[in-house]
Amino acid sequence: MKAEILAVGTEILLGDIVNTNAQYIAKRLADLGITVYHQSVVGDNPERLLEAYRLAFSRADLVITTGGLGPTKDDLTKEVAFEYFGKKSVVHEASLKIIEDYFKKSNRVMVESNKKQAYFPVDAVILPNNNGTAPGCIIEENKKIVVLLPGPPFEMKPMFEESVVPYLKKFEQGVLVSKVLRVIGVGESSAAEMIGDILDTQTNPTVAPYAKEGEVTFRITSKANTYDEGIKLMEPMEAEIRSRLGNDNIYGEGNVTLESVLCEMLVNKKLTISTAESCTGGMVAAALISYPGISSVFMEGAVTYTNDAKINRLGVKKETLDKYGAVSSEVAAEMALGIAKTAGTSIGISTTGIAGPGGGSDEKPVGLVYVGLYINNQVKTKMLKLSGDRQKVRARATKQLLDWVRRELL
Amino acid sequence: MKAEILAVGTEILLGDIVNTNAQYIAKRLADLGITVYHQSVVGDNPERLLEAYRLAFSRADLVITTGGLGPTKDDLTKEVAFEYFGKKSVVHEASLKIIEDYFKKSNRVMVESNKKQAYFPVDAVILPNNNGTAPGCIIEENKKIVVLLPGPPFEMKPMFEESVVPYLKKFEQGVLVSKVLRVIGVGESSAAEMIGDILDTQTNPTVAPYAKEGEVTFRITSKANTYDEGIKLMEPMEAEIRSRLGNDNIYGEGNVTLESVLCEMLVNKKLTISTAESCTGGMVAAALISYPGISSVFMEGAVTYTNDAKINRLGVKKETLDKYGAVSSEVAAEMALGIAKTAGTSIGISTTGIAGPGGGSDEKPVGLVYVGLYINNQVKTKMLKLSGDRQKVRARATKQLLDWVRRELL
Repeated sequence: MKAEILAVGTEILLGDIVNTNAQYIAKRLADLGITVYHQSVVGDNPERLLEAYRLAFSRADLVITTGGLGPTKDDLTKEVAFEYFGKKSVVHEASLKIIEDYFKKSNRVMVESNKKQAYFPVDAVILPNNNGTAPGCIIEENKKIVVLLPGPPFEMKPMFEESVVPYLKKFEQGVLVSKVLRVIGVGESSAAEMIGDILDTQTNPTVAPYAKEGEVTFRITSKANTYDEGIKLMEPMEAEIRSRLGNDNIYGEGNVTLESVLCEMLVNKKLTISTAESCTGGMVAAALISYPGISSVFMEGAVTYTNDAKINRLGVKKETLDKYGAVSSEVAAEMALGIAKTAGTSIGISTTGIAGPGGGSDEKPVGLVYVGLYINNQVKTKMLKLSGDRQKVRARATKQLLDWVRRELL
Repeated sequence: MKAEILAVGTEILLGDIVNTNAQYIAKRLADLGITVYHQSVVGDNPERLLEAYRLAFSRADLVITTGGLGPTKDDLTKEVAFEYFGKKSVVHEASLKIIEDYFKKSNRVMVESNKKQAYFPVDAVILPNNNGTAPGCIIEENKKIVVLLPGPPFEMKPMFEESVVPYLKKFEQGVLVSKVLRVIGVGESSAAEMIGDILDTQTNPTVAPYAKEGEVTFRITSKANTYDEGIKLMEPMEAEIRSRLGNDNIYGEGNVTLESVLCEMLVNKKLTISTAESCTGGMVAAALISYPGISSVFMEGAVTYTNDAKINRLGVKKETLDKYGAVSSEVAAEMALGIAKTAGTSIGISTTGIAGPGGGSDEKPVGLVYVGLYINNQVKTKMLKLSGDRQKVRARATKQLLDWVRRELL
């Protein structure tokens, strides 16, 4: 089966946003063994959009669109698709009800134009939108299939996973089985080098590295007749990759995050934790609290941005601040100890650093961050030298601190 | 002049990388007043690539490609373009010399295939590559122009700025001037309805709405002979949009964030602030601390996830917690007051809510969040009913609280 991805939106043509949807869908179609030869972008213009459908269906059997399902008159993707297929649309009562409820629940006024989002041909497959008002849909006609998805990635991705993937499975020939290994503490090029010969000689299973902010993932994919066969096929490669990269560096598999892995360990081991943050300013606490169920072990966080707050809240000594400065190993240690003691937790963690862009010096440059960890009645610190802008330095410090705690609990 | 952007590379079709080049080039062409109606992606396949050139030149005068200028046999963008234009290529000695020097300098062995990168038609305009081995080029023939650029963004962008922009200036007809208005507190469909007649009748300037997580932006674009004329042309429309949407709802222009706008206000007004968070767990503090220079006004944040922490850290009364529960207007008020008093700040803000997925009840469902604001010696609270998963509820609560503080400071 050949597919095309068609993004609709003048904001992409103007370069206001990056078309990340195309990449997401392309990757998932590749996983499903569906071939993509073309991706296109067209604006919110009915003539060019109709022409884009004609072109796409002249080359492919399946066209997946993103964007243009909104309530405004600019949003035409659906209407032009119906025109292309010669279909009339009527109100889909179940969708209308959901849209009405959505507005009620969020205390917003539903306007007339929102109703447009509930209009579909009677034979369309409706794709529910659990994260917005625009449902998607699938139309199948004479072996041509169009899948219409909303533009915002946080609406599109869940809809794709929940409704489109199960639908497309029926076209799958054999099964593709994938497993993602999540690696932290090894750079992408080092990681790729460590398994260079595997990358060069891969056939089935295949392995693809992908670098994300501070992490590398390896997706192993095998093609087989059954799921179990596929899993079996990838086992030797997975074992080899794990042994080359070091098992400690692989923090999880599949759709997990570093914080969820750490939080699960904390909850299972019943280890209480508290945080004392300066430069990260709440990011460490926010990451931990993203985990549902963390309330049984997360006790308290302090964002002690000023010296006074460090002294009053955490009992950091004024002399320590005077002698070593707020950004120092000594202060990180007293912060971690201080929050653990006042919050009465088994673990206390801390950050203090220079996130920039200002505030750096030769001795203490932007990107210098000390992290502290109180655990097993001992306090330790680490010095991190991080690159990137203010947000990156803060995010990287958060990640490295959480990873440090994870490794301590292995 | 009409242009198209054509990215060449199987790695984009497979979803291994995001096509950020298209966005960069689209934005720069818009700046130059060059219209883009289509963007496409095609793989490293000679037949489909030739067809892509034919299609693109049937719709546009200028085609800008990225990718496929490398030394391997897969890299065909240049060769197929020469074929399309019926041009022979010969070695370009100056380019060959640069490539040879590049290898010498980086102590790498130059292989035969690298010479391919120095082959061009005699009448091509060569675009030097100061960040890699592949030169780009421009071919102009019968009023059709192809610009061939390398794929890696760190090679493509400087080449575009150094060589392509000066070349394209000669085709510039007037300028496109854009301004983005950032709206919060009004949904996309309501906002679009409020200016429906403007959206319907727009010609020059134009206005385009775009929805992002909890916000809507309106991009006004005018086409004029000079920048000043363009600005003048959009003034009446901007004034009208501002008056329809309500100036309070427009929090900023251009590339700003809600938190940066609020933090600038706080710093300018010298208003100190502190935060007490339960369900948002540090996100409010982290958002404020994302602003460089916030240290002059942000004093302290408390992540008081447990009742004990609320009592000990913030002086929330045990009776209040017992009587109304942790998720209540009363507790939000005591938290905001408590943090402002202990941190000694002019403003104290608080959050307490049920982010889910568990913990909800009929009376207090998931998504119920109370936010508190202590300001001008008064404490107020607001009840929010938010939709979405745990992360969305927390992010939306953060945004609405920050927006509330912003409105109080107007």
